[in-house]
Amino acid sequence: MLEDLQVTYPAGTYVFRQGEAGSEMFIIQEGRVEILAQKGRKEVPLAVLEEGDFFGEMAVLEDLPRTASARTLTPCQLLRIDRQTFDQLIRHNPEIAVRMLRKLCHRLR
Amino acid sequence: MLEDLQVTYPAGTYVFRQGEAGSEMFIIQEGRVEILAQKGRKEVPLAVLEEGDFFGEMAVLEDLPRTASARTLTPCQLLRIDRQTFDQLIRHNPEIAVRMLRKLCHRLR
Ligand SMILES: Nc1ncnc2c1ncn2[C@@H]1O[C@@H]2COP(=O)(O)O[C@H]2[C@H]1O
Ligand SMILES: Nc1ncnc2c1ncn2[C@@H]1O[C@@H]2COP(=O)(O)O[C@H]2[C@H]1O
Repeated sequence: MLEDLQVTYPAGTYVFRQGEAGSEMFIIQEGRVEILAQKGRKEVPLAVLEEGDFFGEMAVLEDLPRTASARTLTPCQLLRIDRQTFDQLIRHNPEIAVRMLRKLCHRLR
Repeated sequence: MLEDLQVTYPAGTYVFRQGEAGSEMFIIQEGRVEILAQKGRKEVPLAVLEEGDFFGEMAVLEDLPRTASARTLTPCQLLRIDRQTFDQLIRHNPEIAVRMLRKLCHRLR
């Protein structure tokens, strides 16, 4: 079942771009992903994420445009989680929500 | 059972202060609470929360000191949720975690 959600990207590929609509979040199974903010014409790196990290949750949770871009730094294998899968995932594994809450709190500090 | 968790505060009372250790979060059942950041000698208001809102989740999730102070603006009735109760609450009501995730994302924007 997880296999259905797996997607692979070569290095240097945009998974999505800031400002786009998006209804999916991603969990990194393999590789590294850079989060980039568009400031005028420049792209400013915000974070580098790795195996086990997630991104793209904000658009999924709030139904608002992507707050930043995500680009692969290495070849990546990702799990692509749409809203429905997200709801199922949380319902069956509430501890995932707690891990996500922890990460967001950490980012707020 | 919920009654065991209820606490009441008069107006103008600190529920907790920035920098303190804390292992409880609060859900507002009645009243309004102001979140205040200590900047040098000044207290800067960050947010006013009301019925249905929660606060104090960051210390509970991360086991770190309070990032801000919380003071009642009106007489308040709060639910006081310790770590164990929090874990039970989320396990039995994962949608609460999703609502909390949404709030934190909103605060990150
Ligand atoms: N400062 C940050 N640190 C780490 N990740 C971030 C940061 N800002 C945004 N993101 C992630 O980048 C994603 C961009 O798309 P979303 O807004 O859907 O969700 C966002 C978060 O997952
Ligand atoms: N900018 C903010 N807006 C709303 N609530 C906040 C803000 N910053 C901190 N808080 C809340 O204030 C609380 C202070 O204690 P905690 O750090 O445990 O958890 C914090 C959050 O619940």
